[in-house]
Amino acid sequence: MGITTEAKACDFVLFGTKGDLAKRKLLPSLYQLDKAGLLNEDTKILGVAKDSFTLEEYRVLVKTALSTFIKEELCPETLNRFMERCYYIGTNFTESKGYKAFHTVLEPKKRATVCYFATPPAIFGDICRCLNEQELIFPDTRVVLEKPIGSDLASSKVINDQVSAFFSEEQIYRIDHYLGKETVQNLIALRFANSLFASKWDNRTIDHVQISVAEEVGIEGRWGYFDKAGQMRDMIQNHLLQVLTLVAMDPPVNLDADSIRDEKVKVLKSLRPINEDNIFENTVRGQYSSGFLKGSPAPGYLEEEGANVNSNTETFVALRVDIDNWRWAGVPFYLRSGKRMPFKSSEIVVYFKNPPHNLYRSNYRNLPPNKLTIRLQPHEGVEIQMMNKVPGLEQKQRLQTAKLDLSFSDTFKTERIADAYERLLLEAMLGNQSLFVRRDEVEQAWSWVDGIINAWESSSEKPKSYPAGTWGPVASVALIAKDGRSWDE
Amino acid sequence: MGITTEAKACDFVLFGTKGDLAKRKLLPSLYQLDKAGLLNEDTKILGVAKDSFTLEEYRVLVKTALSTFIKEELCPETLNRFMERCYYIGTNFTESKGYKAFHTVLEPKKRATVCYFATPPAIFGDICRCLNEQELIFPDTRVVLEKPIGSDLASSKVINDQVSAFFSEEQIYRIDHYLGKETVQNLIALRFANSLFASKWDNRTIDHVQISVAEEVGIEGRWGYFDKAGQMRDMIQNHLLQVLTLVAMDPPVNLDADSIRDEKVKVLKSLRPINEDNIFENTVRGQYSSGFLKGSPAPGYLEEEGANVNSNTETFVALRVDIDNWRWAGVPFYLRSGKRMPFKSSEIVVYFKNPPHNLYRSNYRNLPPNKLTIRLQPHEGVEIQMMNKVPGLEQKQRLQTAKLDLSFSDTFKTERIADAYERLLLEAMLGNQSLFVRRDEVEQAWSWVDGIINAWESSSEKPKSYPAGTWGPVASVALIAKDGRSWDE
Repeated sequence: MGITTEAKACDFVLFGTKGDLAKRKLLPSLYQLDKAGLLNEDTKILGVAKDSFTLEEYRVLVKTALSTFIKEELCPETLNRFMERCYYIGTNFTESKGYKAFHTVLEPKKRATVCYFATPPAIFGDICRCLNEQELIFPDTRVVLEKPIGSDLASSKVINDQVSAFFSEEQIYRIDHYLGKETVQNLIALRFANSLFASKWDNRTIDHVQISVAEEVGIEGRWGYFDKAGQMRDMIQNHLLQVLTLVAMDPPVNLDADSIRDEKVKVLKSLRPINEDNIFENTVRGQYSSGFLKGSPAPGYLEEEGANVNSNTETFVALRVDIDNWRWAGVPFYLRSGKRMPFKSSEIVVYFKNPPHNLYRSNYRNLPPNKLTIRLQPHEGVEIQMMNKVPGLEQKQRLQTAKLDLSFSDTFKTERIADAYERLLLEAMLGNQSLFVRRDEVEQAWSWVDGIINAWESSSEKPKSYPAGTWGPVASVALIAKDGRSWDE
Repeated sequence: MGITTEAKACDFVLFGTKGDLAKRKLLPSLYQLDKAGLLNEDTKILGVAKDSFTLEEYRVLVKTALSTFIKEELCPETLNRFMERCYYIGTNFTESKGYKAFHTVLEPKKRATVCYFATPPAIFGDICRCLNEQELIFPDTRVVLEKPIGSDLASSKVINDQVSAFFSEEQIYRIDHYLGKETVQNLIALRFANSLFASKWDNRTIDHVQISVAEEVGIEGRWGYFDKAGQMRDMIQNHLLQVLTLVAMDPPVNLDADSIRDEKVKVLKSLRPINEDNIFENTVRGQYSSGFLKGSPAPGYLEEEGANVNSNTETFVALRVDIDNWRWAGVPFYLRSGKRMPFKSSEIVVYFKNPPHNLYRSNYRNLPPNKLTIRLQPHEGVEIQMMNKVPGLEQKQRLQTAKLDLSFSDTFKTERIADAYERLLLEAMLGNQSLFVRRDEVEQAWSWVDGIINAWESSSEKPKSYPAGTWGPVASVALIAKDGRSWDE
């Protein structure tokens, strides 16, 4: 519990406390932090929504959320303590008069106030304005913004401008929950605390990199929302590009938030633009049709509840990304993300170049390269594929790939792997921005992604169809095969 | 069983069939090869010793050896087939008239004859002479020489000359059973089929290498023999130097026997001489005194049965070896081998250099380097030590070493790990010399080892004492500590 002393008491304000994200992720994460002794005993949680709940009613809502979305049994002691922290104020988010009551709970002048906007981004600006009108903004007031921040560069600028009218960049914490994942954080340690990789992380030794995020789920009742976004905005623009920057960035000066984010922005600035000239060589977009998932029939995207049958929205994207800088010239990064894939899996695979000469060519013509796989989910871990001699008395040296494996849950047995949101909420309360996305990162990412989306829209080609339960359109195989490579299996 | 067709029928002549090596290793290995279908059905085994056994008596001896030294139950079918192969001739090894009877069993003109000399080296020459006198030597007659081949350069030359008077180098197979170990053979695959190591195997990326062979056993009733040799001749001159050459050699032109051995000799030629001038900086010799092994009292070397209490023979050696060539300039190889160590363990540990800059210096001042461990025994396998972020919500990035592990027996589950002698006997029967030691290798090794032994002998310092059941004299820790390093634990 020694860590508790480091976490100063603060007020955590949860706008949109009745929403799915708050119930499914944020309240359970706060509970887990409390259980781990990482919340100061004086830290308060203030839920805000439109409804006029009594305190008792709100606490019932919180308790129901915890028991629904936390798998293990709740600890009665923690639960009691947690309930005591919870307050509630019902107000219309866009009318500042309802915010006056915040002063009955919060002490924004005296201690940090962390405002989590689990609301549609369209009202981020209104919330800021209301906070300001009720004199709730002080130097130690922070806002945590949940994605999506805009749907393109222009709209993201509007939202960011609205928030920055009241908050400086140092007060703004833009969430990308991929940055809270243990294996993503471990990327920095892997790269910079291991000379085996530190000194080999460039175009002299790496052949190419693959980043894949496959979802098994389809649209899950949010067709209307998703159809406006598409997989490019929903997954690539944020999660996959964030992971890409951590894989590709140069060594930062130090581990401070801005040193790391400076390097990440440099990568985003180096992405070779994809536009109408090169869209077909470098991208494949797909949309799932009906198929089977683990033996059960699954509807196509255009047959889902609420679907507009003329939609051209992509549910799958494969990209060849080139990073035009000294480190990565000639090393493509292949990105792939889709819904209704055969199973859920997120991983980064770094393919090393082959040895300069194959001594084994007489009995192993195409030696498989070494590869480093970082599994983000499920089964977080790291593995290295190597060639070994198969034990045995055959006359010729028979080689076989074998994996050196490090499973996080097996290796660090005593540790429960924390959810990404636990880490991120804690960091926001501690005032550490390194796991949050800076405005220039968001804007660089949008600016690159906009080029692709515009090129798609100006073409009359529709997304390619792929049956639910497969790894995407055949064209995505061709995208990488034409470079003489193949997706990791 | 497809492999059988490759192994042509041959005659295997086992000189010294009553000895410990034959009973413990050679006969069981031949049985295992038979069981695995790797002996041609017409291959014969001819045991030779002084006694005048009947064929029946000899077959009982063989059967007893097999059932004593093979752990698993014998396969009746294999046993029958194996017994049918066995023949016996009793003769004095140094009198050629007894060899005449060999012609009743062997067909040296028609097929390969593999003569295994499991006898004292002093009579190797006599055996060759007798074989010659009885016209048993043809181009496809091979001799397998068991170590020790001499006790220094001069005596090894005498033995090698005696044998080469009758056999060409292509007919001579010098055994070092370490070369038959699966993990030692895997060294070549690890180094040259994996770019992760292939391109990093030199003084730019490797800090130092450790090769350790720790024996738990003491002298086991062979005090008289061992006292004349000592650990330097018994373990370092052959096994550890052989392993060192495979770790250090340049890439061979191809995997042919002489291409590999050419590179191994180059390493031996590059060993920096150790002599009276630098013996104290680079070597430590030890002799065990009484102590405890796994809780039981163990006698000292000078208290063993048959001991001469004035013996200065070393039972432990630690060396710093420098390889004066382009690849290894500045990269010491530390060798260590001893008897009566706490447990049996043979391993190679390659320590990589640290990353050029420590980003984690504020909370991990001395980042442990990456290391590659190749376990020769027990639990053959490969592991890589890497730094990872410990999963958890601590405010600072906590790092921890973790091991990516590849256990041979776990990974290649269906494969029984063959004993080194099985591999080597098979190779000798197949006529492949790559796992055997060429004359120039033996002589280069002796020439370097002689320098050390002479320097020890010309000094009046005795070996340093260490209690049985410890890792050797304290001075061996100092040997490596003065370079700012420590033995692998």
